[in-house]
Amino acid sequence: MSRRLGKQTVALAGGPGVLGWASVAGRKEHDGPYGDKFDRVIADEMDGQDSFEAAERHMLESAVRLCLLKTGKKTEDVQLFLSGDLLNQIISAGFAARALGIPFYGLYGACSTMSESLSLGGMLADGGFADLIVCATCSHFCTAERQYRAPLELGNQRTPTQQWTVTGAGAVLLGAGAAAARAKAALTHATCGRVLDLGVTDANNMGAAMAPAAADTLAAHFHDTDRSFEDYDLVVTGDLGRHGRDLLIELLKEKGVFVREEKLFDCGCEIFSARQDTHAGGSGCGCSASMLCAHLLPEVCAGHLQRILFMATGALLSPTSSMQGESIPGVAHAVAIEHRQGEENA
Amino acid sequence: MSRRLGKQTVALAGGPGVLGWASVAGRKEHDGPYGDKFDRVIADEMDGQDSFEAAERHMLESAVRLCLLKTGKKTEDVQLFLSGDLLNQIISAGFAARALGIPFYGLYGACSTMSESLSLGGMLADGGFADLIVCATCSHFCTAERQYRAPLELGNQRTPTQQWTVTGAGAVLLGAGAAAARAKAALTHATCGRVLDLGVTDANNMGAAMAPAAADTLAAHFHDTDRSFEDYDLVVTGDLGRHGRDLLIELLKEKGVFVREEKLFDCGCEIFSARQDTHAGGSGCGCSASMLCAHLLPEVCAGHLQRILFMATGALLSPTSSMQGESIPGVAHAVAIEHRQGEENA
Repeated sequence: MSRRLGKQTVALAGGPGVLGWASVAGRKEHDGPYGDKFDRVIADEMDGQDSFEAAERHMLESAVRLCLLKTGKKTEDVQLFLSGDLLNQIISAGFAARALGIPFYGLYGACSTMSESLSLGGMLADGGFADLIVCATCSHFCTAERQYRAPLELGNQRTPTQQWTVTGAGAVLLGAGAAAARAKAALTHATCGRVLDLGVTDANNMGAAMAPAAADTLAAHFHDTDRSFEDYDLVVTGDLGRHGRDLLIELLKEKGVFVREEKLFDCGCEIFSARQDTHAGGSGCGCSASMLCAHLLPEVCAGHLQRILFMATGALLSPTSSMQGESIPGVAHAVAIEHRQGEENA
Repeated sequence: MSRRLGKQTVALAGGPGVLGWASVAGRKEHDGPYGDKFDRVIADEMDGQDSFEAAERHMLESAVRLCLLKTGKKTEDVQLFLSGDLLNQIISAGFAARALGIPFYGLYGACSTMSESLSLGGMLADGGFADLIVCATCSHFCTAERQYRAPLELGNQRTPTQQWTVTGAGAVLLGAGAAAARAKAALTHATCGRVLDLGVTDANNMGAAMAPAAADTLAAHFHDTDRSFEDYDLVVTGDLGRHGRDLLIELLKEKGVFVREEKLFDCGCEIFSARQDTHAGGSGCGCSASMLCAHLLPEVCAGHLQRILFMATGALLSPTSSMQGESIPGVAHAVAIEHRQGEENA
């Protein structure tokens, strides 16, 4: 039975259920407008570990454990862990998988990882390949900054288009079959993005590099599903930031998509307030993952949002490719998430 | 409908078909015992590009294009490209995806990437989420050496347990439904590995770091499917090398698995001959990928091998984690591949 819907989209007919979620965030994220919504806030950037890298993977692991705790599940109950992160060789995800002991497929989608893991997890749950799947990702300001940009000790001045890598993690437990029927939110569609590149070479302007991919995937999703902004309460992007969000609106208009700007919710624009001096906003895998798990999923499950499109975007550059003069390719993956009554109210 | 079989394995009831494949290799690999089987051999390590990194991605892209050419398909016919590689931020796969224009989910499984992509691709095809999927990966001696170890110009002496990163790429076209019926090989099972770590800290002895994961996944596969070595013509490992292969045999015996050593085919041990001075053998994502596409799949399709288990292994370390004193976690994913009569002979 084909589940294809157009060129890039699949329909998840069984509606894999969102059984639980958990978010972890840093101090700066705690000081932002959604600060009181995170499940756990770390005391400082070390989170009791010996290095920033160890702190990052500890945040990811604790998000997963918290998600399972909240849903009354054990690691042994879960058949798949789909995760990745921004660090070289995705060591946060790999080491967390070692600690958790759940069979693991490693992903890399840069900041699109949360929607990539939900897309793949949604399909695997819907296809009957697993009953319980954890989809998770994380990022950490201190690890990303020194890997991608410069040693923290340099105290480099930041450009106006630059974003602030979120210290945060998010984990979602997906379920299929009987378990899914109890869920108050379900995944209904997944649209896989193409890698696009309009020639942006400024690694301090990721939003501009990712906006074309976001526009392309959103247009493909609307085309494949015969939907528009009218069908969603929110169209959520990951971390385009202020400049990337503006560019997305422009690119969508060029494509003839009628844009309802008030429905365009960019996690990067939302997670910090203007007084927090993060320039163009937040970024990193943990940005959309923690906002999804702290704010968006609870709103969908409560029925305050009936249907959202969650579309995280990633910039597929490396410091090496930038030094070699390459421009920055972007990718965006989208999953549609709907409110469900859940079994007990049905 | 659940397709689960035990704790870590899924049955691919529809038998996603292997519709085509292609391999690309470097000069040294061409000089090895399987040298005349590669579809394309690059003239030198630059493959006509400006950098080793550009050469690596060009090899990957050309393997995919060659695979499609051999099967009479176009990039537009393919719905998913599942790929990853060893470079930071998987730039080989990301940039190849940009050139190919096929919707792309990025993976990272270190040297286990080929079996990870086949596992996920097999499930997505079997579940009806795509009709045509390309699974591919690559590695390049010159890019891996300078990223993971030391500048090539240093000419460092190599330890006896060290392996030689294969310059090579492999691409497989999977198909579902009607297309799969014509295939001479099909995927029947996928076993997802756990991340294991027995405390090996020597980054020049990857085989030892990966062997525990290989033993764990193989034992899980045999348990879940109620199979043994007797049920396979070959149990193929990715790149354990000579020391890792010996350790795998030892660990399997400890687990009470009856080992038929003559059926244990390690791509890392096979790709180079002893006179090529690669110490413990070949390694890298491209090792098992190019051997699968140059030698193993043709043998299965011809019926010389009736059933193989393809289990590539990956070491989930990074230079940063090693410098921070972490030991090396390993992972192994397995897919069972069977000969089919194919429609025209049925």
